[in-house]
Amino acid sequence: MTDQPSAELPRVGLPDEAMREAARARQLRLTKPAGALGRLECLGAWAAAVQGACPPQLFAQPTVVVFAGDHGIARTAATSAYPPEVTAQMVLNFIAGGAAVNVLARRADAAVRVVDVSVDADVSYLDAADPSVAAHRIRRGSGSIDREDAMTLDEAQRAFALGRSIADREIDAGADLLIPGDMGIGNTTPAAALVGLLTSLDAAKVTGTGTGIDDATWMRKCAAVRDAMRRGRPLLADPIALLAAIGGADLAAMTGFILQAAVRRTPVILDGTISGACAMLADRLDFRARQWWVAGHQSTEPAHRAALHHLDLEPLLDYELRLGEGTGALLALPVLQAAIATLGQMATFDEAGVSDRDA
Amino acid sequence: MTDQPSAELPRVGLPDEAMREAARARQLRLTKPAGALGRLECLGAWAAAVQGACPPQLFAQPTVVVFAGDHGIARTAATSAYPPEVTAQMVLNFIAGGAAVNVLARRADAAVRVVDVSVDADVSYLDAADPSVAAHRIRRGSGSIDREDAMTLDEAQRAFALGRSIADREIDAGADLLIPGDMGIGNTTPAAALVGLLTSLDAAKVTGTGTGIDDATWMRKCAAVRDAMRRGRPLLADPIALLAAIGGADLAAMTGFILQAAVRRTPVILDGTISGACAMLADRLDFRARQWWVAGHQSTEPAHRAALHHLDLEPLLDYELRLGEGTGALLALPVLQAAIATLGQMATFDEAGVSDRDA
Repeated sequence: MTDQPSAELPRVGLPDEAMREAARARQLRLTKPAGALGRLECLGAWAAAVQGACPPQLFAQPTVVVFAGDHGIARTAATSAYPPEVTAQMVLNFIAGGAAVNVLARRADAAVRVVDVSVDADVSYLDAADPSVAAHRIRRGSGSIDREDAMTLDEAQRAFALGRSIADREIDAGADLLIPGDMGIGNTTPAAALVGLLTSLDAAKVTGTGTGIDDATWMRKCAAVRDAMRRGRPLLADPIALLAAIGGADLAAMTGFILQAAVRRTPVILDGTISGACAMLADRLDFRARQWWVAGHQSTEPAHRAALHHLDLEPLLDYELRLGEGTGALLALPVLQAAIATLGQMATFDEAGVSDRDA
Repeated sequence: MTDQPSAELPRVGLPDEAMREAARARQLRLTKPAGALGRLECLGAWAAAVQGACPPQLFAQPTVVVFAGDHGIARTAATSAYPPEVTAQMVLNFIAGGAAVNVLARRADAAVRVVDVSVDADVSYLDAADPSVAAHRIRRGSGSIDREDAMTLDEAQRAFALGRSIADREIDAGADLLIPGDMGIGNTTPAAALVGLLTSLDAAKVTGTGTGIDDATWMRKCAAVRDAMRRGRPLLADPIALLAAIGGADLAAMTGFILQAAVRRTPVILDGTISGACAMLADRLDFRARQWWVAGHQSTEPAHRAALHHLDLEPLLDYELRLGEGTGALLALPVLQAAIATLGQMATFDEAGVSDRDA
């Protein structure tokens, strides 16, 4: 058993329920039938609660942090449709601004940071583009989780602490909404294994087709998930040890990131399968943390569906995305902003001289 | 039988299938697994087809036109939770910019126009705010459709022509995407009756709770829908006569508007129940028109669900909205723009030096 990081982790507080109630009361005075904005009204009330303000303000500095890392399983079991070198190539694509996450972030006025936590490539290769990206790299790649640990316990703790410090850094720099993004060929394999263990589902029920693998690859992936789950089962009570055994440094960092956001009373839009798995681990470290999260979307991966169901989070969108990077969360961001805008900017019945139903 | 407006209506053309294919081919070269952007990819390909360009451009001048009208049935059968004077009050709220449609349009960079087609209020009342709003009013209110025609056939034809001319005016002024909005206490009653007739569903299957009515009101509304359907059944083959008998001048204008958009090769995001009913009528006037439309959302009204199912349009969002005004379409507009942005702005595998799966 590791030293519980929860011992040193400040207790997560709860959102401001008085502001949620104030938002609901305000919704009733706006010039529309009661409840006519449906789920937008719930979302606006959540924004009021996490901001501790009614009406809430539009998020001014939403920030995506993409956690990049390679996974040994992609090499040993060939569980992905793409070669492992794509991880590093995509990190360069993020830096150059050409990936989907960049395009969607520009549309939604969000910033994008990239952190190389455990990419299996020469650091100098990335340094040429942006030295800050790999400045805190924990290790190069991670072990093949069907047969060996992803990393040491010390590395897992350092990766978890790195994620927390990144959340702190972004929040201190003004970020008022955080989005965890992921990049890593093979990363749905550890995510599926973690979700399988935490939801007590069989490997076949949580193993998906990831980037678009064929049946033979799916069977190999499924066996890898099964073997990883067997290796992880004795560690179920210890999230950090579980990350060390069958996760990855990138996943450990993301877990620290979304948990620290909650500690700092900063809301999070979760993205896909990887952030779903990390959210389940963060939820075990502090069960209050999920109050600070919304699920941006429902991806096509079965592990993601299982994670959201377990966390009782209803996705904002269902667009059959399966890209990661933070794209699903970014697609949902304008919907969240729209919820805030209607709550704050619509006229009330009194202001507009409109008759209410009880008038 | 009226003179068929389809006789004088130019034939609707089809979107550019070559550009849809070009978009699909381009999607395969973008730096993401094939199909990983899910429904966004279909939406981007649709944008390419309706714009006749690949990659398509972000819509630069999306324009909502809110068609306002009163409905006699709201007075005679009290089918709404709100008093009829709210229609005119809300028109003033639109002009002042305080309604949900205004807030969401500002978020999505869309313009909002309001047209008083058949509001039952003093024109001078509205003229004080904006004389253009009621400049083309067809009539004051409409008949109680459970027992009398909504309007004369001549009025229906003029309202239909008005909607077409409004589409022309906005497109000529630069609008590249049109959104039909509605405002009218009682307007879900004619919409439900029209959808019931056109889908062969019973009144009870298409009658919803609109602005939030109680059970007794729902039973009155259901009887009104049933009686209107009985009155309209002999006119099923003639959409304009049907609008005259059991529709309303506002619905006739909206029908002309969305059909003329298709004639002008201009895409439309449909909104809720009212535009769903009008889309079904426009579809009967020219079956190609639906190729130019996407459904912005799925509202809570059963008539809307039936209309979208019949038109085989899959809603972009399901947020349990039931407000109308164009709000559901505006909520979906950023998703459509995101689809266009990813298609046009993402780097290709070659550009980014990323290995494809076949590399």
